[in-house]
Amino acid sequence: MSKYWSHITKRIEPYVPGEQPRSTSVIKLNTNENPYPPSPKVLDAIRQHINEDLKLYPSPTADDLKQAIAKYFNVNEKQVFVGNGSDEVLAFSFLAFFNPGRDILFPDITYSFYPVYANLYGLNYREISLTEDFTIPVEQFYDAPGGVIFPNPNAPTGIALTLESIERILKHNREKVVIVDEAYIDFGGDTAVSLIPKYENLLIIQTLSKSRSLAGMRIGFALGNEQLIEGLERIKNSFNSYTLDRLSLAAGKVAIEDVDYFNETREKIMATRERVAKELKNLSFHVLDSKANFLFIRHDTVPSKHIYEKLKEQGIYVRYFKKMRIDQFIRVTIGTETEMDSFIQAVKSIVQN
Amino acid sequence: MSKYWSHITKRIEPYVPGEQPRSTSVIKLNTNENPYPPSPKVLDAIRQHINEDLKLYPSPTADDLKQAIAKYFNVNEKQVFVGNGSDEVLAFSFLAFFNPGRDILFPDITYSFYPVYANLYGLNYREISLTEDFTIPVEQFYDAPGGVIFPNPNAPTGIALTLESIERILKHNREKVVIVDEAYIDFGGDTAVSLIPKYENLLIIQTLSKSRSLAGMRIGFALGNEQLIEGLERIKNSFNSYTLDRLSLAAGKVAIEDVDYFNETREKIMATRERVAKELKNLSFHVLDSKANFLFIRHDTVPSKHIYEKLKEQGIYVRYFKKMRIDQFIRVTIGTETEMDSFIQAVKSIVQN
Repeated sequence: MSKYWSHITKRIEPYVPGEQPRSTSVIKLNTNENPYPPSPKVLDAIRQHINEDLKLYPSPTADDLKQAIAKYFNVNEKQVFVGNGSDEVLAFSFLAFFNPGRDILFPDITYSFYPVYANLYGLNYREISLTEDFTIPVEQFYDAPGGVIFPNPNAPTGIALTLESIERILKHNREKVVIVDEAYIDFGGDTAVSLIPKYENLLIIQTLSKSRSLAGMRIGFALGNEQLIEGLERIKNSFNSYTLDRLSLAAGKVAIEDVDYFNETREKIMATRERVAKELKNLSFHVLDSKANFLFIRHDTVPSKHIYEKLKEQGIYVRYFKKMRIDQFIRVTIGTETEMDSFIQAVKSIVQN
Repeated sequence: MSKYWSHITKRIEPYVPGEQPRSTSVIKLNTNENPYPPSPKVLDAIRQHINEDLKLYPSPTADDLKQAIAKYFNVNEKQVFVGNGSDEVLAFSFLAFFNPGRDILFPDITYSFYPVYANLYGLNYREISLTEDFTIPVEQFYDAPGGVIFPNPNAPTGIALTLESIERILKHNREKVVIVDEAYIDFGGDTAVSLIPKYENLLIIQTLSKSRSLAGMRIGFALGNEQLIEGLERIKNSFNSYTLDRLSLAAGKVAIEDVDYFNETREKIMATRERVAKELKNLSFHVLDSKANFLFIRHDTVPSKHIYEKLKEQGIYVRYFKKMRIDQFIRVTIGTETEMDSFIQAVKSIVQN
């Protein structure tokens, strides 16, 4: 604590991201990155932008990237907001749409950055307990005092809500913003984009970090009614005129446009996920039904913390959350086939000893 | 106005950056970019990082970049914070060190983003009038209720404070944070870095956008006492785990390390500035004494708005501020020798007609 810190700085409890080990020999299944490289077209596009124009500011409005996103989702360009990773887009959204004194609702087991944002801005929130089987109890999100946010699929469970459930939440919160955080939507869930014309209170947030293999470039975006997007622009333009650099703008555009590569890699990941889930079940793991690029698993007899530590000793990083109800689980990002073979082998030797 | 906007979203007045014309044929002297390209070593470093690792998150702690900055300034790595342009570092600083209800002091004529940040966070501020000759009245920054921020050199005047003046402001605000925004320090001012060991309330903010020709890559940083840096880290880690992407981290490191290129280009800019200032004086311009990469000028008889508009017609962009006391000036970024020759020719024909 320093006497120079503001009340806010003293109050907050910062988020702690998963480890980024420096060693390249580890198998990194701990931060839900994509195991496949970015599209070769994306790497080419970046190369083409390495020139003296880097001395100039990027476009403050990021029109080219917004246009590509709008075209892909068949929405209007004014329904698109872009930011420095979906984390920044989320941070802006909390400030843009939520007011202190009125509880925001989100699940008790979810992306652990949500309470951090709320604390940063002095916003109140209420955590809604997931059901016994770790699904979102839809009715409990009705008539939220301040607004709603949840990931679909949820993290770290990987379980997805149906569009019909999401629509019920939207219908019962017409006066409040409902944020659907679709960071993992491309691995099997149904995006809520089709609901935008019907629900002006719907904000969808996505990222290029997962399904487009661009975690290293920090590109996130939001889709929603023009009024909501304008609100985000107001906040962004009161914070930083240029949140995406020239190379991220170039990379993002081509990543969205290269649909074939995107489909090919995400399908590979989904296939690997199903294969690994089956093998884990054969090893007496309880495996939640995941529509994300990770699996949330618990062994019948061996404690998760033990598995987590033993795996780490062998250079395999997974994520363990020391938190009530989920401290018996580990979250395992889906890697390449080869990486998952090593993972399965390692896990087998741990649980069978 | 939308019913979905938070009170803050409704209240704020976003910052408006200088125009970024798409045409490449214009002479762009309006946003204080560097006319020289980034160091060739920087471009090489970026190229080397275009590979499949872009699928992985960047380092959340940005250690390599921090180390390079620490080494250059001969400070400890824990005295360095990095962010997505100095705008983001400024935005974090307002939140980290200032509290609502206590006036922050800054000059009335200064970087117009300061009141925007204050409004974003509901902070109070008092604008201190510059003296008749546009210098900062040092004594009026003593005993600031909430803290102090000013650019050195100031923008858009370009006038620098002496280190002795800065030290007086620091001495008279021991309990409050004093932020010295050194965005333009490398063009002739004296950095306050040497005062860090003596003043734990001093935060210095710099950018690679100007003197390192990297506006397109969004890299800013802060230097100060470890407590202040820790405060900034707390805010950043409650907002976005990874604010700099992999390519910006690589570019920033090499840009700081290539001291020869840095010195060569900034010296060229300073020489051009002095030459242009002299020629403008010969054309009956009043030219403020600039230690920045721009000149703030007023003609004896021809209105600035007219000059601004006529220049624009000829494809030469400068910046005009429609604001009391300075609406008789234009701000002209120092370009290459050739660009400034074109500028002088154009201005000559405007003021002599």
